[in-house]
Amino acid sequence: MNDQPKAVVLLSGGLDSTTTLAIARSQGFEIYALSFQYGQRHGIELEAARRIARHLRVAKHVVVDIDLRLFGGSALTDDIAVPKRRSLTEMGGDIPLTYVPARNTIFLSFALAWAEVLDSEDIFIGINALDYSGYPDCRPEYIGAFENLAALATKAGVQGRQKLKIHTPLIRMTKAQIIKKGLEMGADYSLTHSCYDPSETGEACGECDSCLLRLKGFREAGVPDPIRYRNRNG
Amino acid sequence: MNDQPKAVVLLSGGLDSTTTLAIARSQGFEIYALSFQYGQRHGIELEAARRIARHLRVAKHVVVDIDLRLFGGSALTDDIAVPKRRSLTEMGGDIPLTYVPARNTIFLSFALAWAEVLDSEDIFIGINALDYSGYPDCRPEYIGAFENLAALATKAGVQGRQKLKIHTPLIRMTKAQIIKKGLEMGADYSLTHSCYDPSETGEACGECDSCLLRLKGFREAGVPDPIRYRNRNG
Repeated sequence: MNDQPKAVVLLSGGLDSTTTLAIARSQGFEIYALSFQYGQRHGIELEAARRIARHLRVAKHVVVDIDLRLFGGSALTDDIAVPKRRSLTEMGGDIPLTYVPARNTIFLSFALAWAEVLDSEDIFIGINALDYSGYPDCRPEYIGAFENLAALATKAGVQGRQKLKIHTPLIRMTKAQIIKKGLEMGADYSLTHSCYDPSETGEACGECDSCLLRLKGFREAGVPDPIRYRNRNG
Repeated sequence: MNDQPKAVVLLSGGLDSTTTLAIARSQGFEIYALSFQYGQRHGIELEAARRIARHLRVAKHVVVDIDLRLFGGSALTDDIAVPKRRSLTEMGGDIPLTYVPARNTIFLSFALAWAEVLDSEDIFIGINALDYSGYPDCRPEYIGAFENLAALATKAGVQGRQKLKIHTPLIRMTKAQIIKKGLEMGADYSLTHSCYDPSETGEACGECDSCLLRLKGFREAGVPDPIRYRNRNG
């Protein structure tokens, strides 16, 4: 096992990060899964992340507790209502209310710290430039800028021993392509959680942007979504 | 007060960050001070940060709790002995044991999140390329890479409304110059804490790298260091 390269994989417990983890594993990496508890209203996501980490047999799963509510600024951490039943045009037209300031920058910074300690050169993140075009920190040029930063930030980078690579295997895929790929790689989507506004028992709302994109993806992939919804297709 | 520009200032409670805060204030910024509780052994630093924030009348002081011990990898967070009584050559020759992986990247990421929420274009950080030449993330090229990242990471950057500036007023200054500057700007160094290995009552050891650099700075500035030491000059 010791000659297996290590990868830090950001794992939210959603469909995209689960697929990303399955892809990283299929490429031969030993997986160090990293999740965040950041004052989001749907802590249910973290339970999903724990189940997925066990199911895909990661070497270690760390949950970092950070409180982004201290700064405010987003529907996922403040008490702003989650938008419901929006069309794809409405979702794509602006930066979403559910945008969390600098979230991916914070997440990648922690991943970088762990990668440095592990002597790993590989971080995987399940960002997607198509479905989430409104998020500035989901674009390829943003990822390139983070790789540049990493090369200057770390001991290994400075000593020229290492060039950190941030893998974004989903960046150009549609949700349907992501789902098909994940199923090939052994992802179990019944364990995942995507909804921005779940019930207390973890049932998805079926109407928030995240549910609508997920349901559309399963429809287009021609496979059933194995999770339960309060409202399907509104 | 409302037309005063806002700045996020990273405040550790040490001499450099205190000077940086005093400089930012003298430039007319309303100050939002940001400190971190990150499993460092010297939580005494945070008490210093709180005293300094009060003394320099910041608009708000936020302490973010993050646990870098989850990843291990440094004398400041692990149980490795702090090196004592090293010469300047020994300190400068390698990347210090007290280096915390990706620390400044994590700190700046949180500062970026807060700046975005505040609609601030200015972050101040008291890094120094001379005294801490061993730290990869204390160099000007690292800061430039973070500014590039910030321009791509945020709503304001993407919309072209804003170009985040990371101010590093101390980057080319010697410790003696920093001390003289801070005294001009109203910094009270009796409130600060620098030691990597303080006693339980907060007395500085006088022998770790940080104490030695501080004491040398005060000697060269020709002013007495107002804090108490267990051992002065070893």
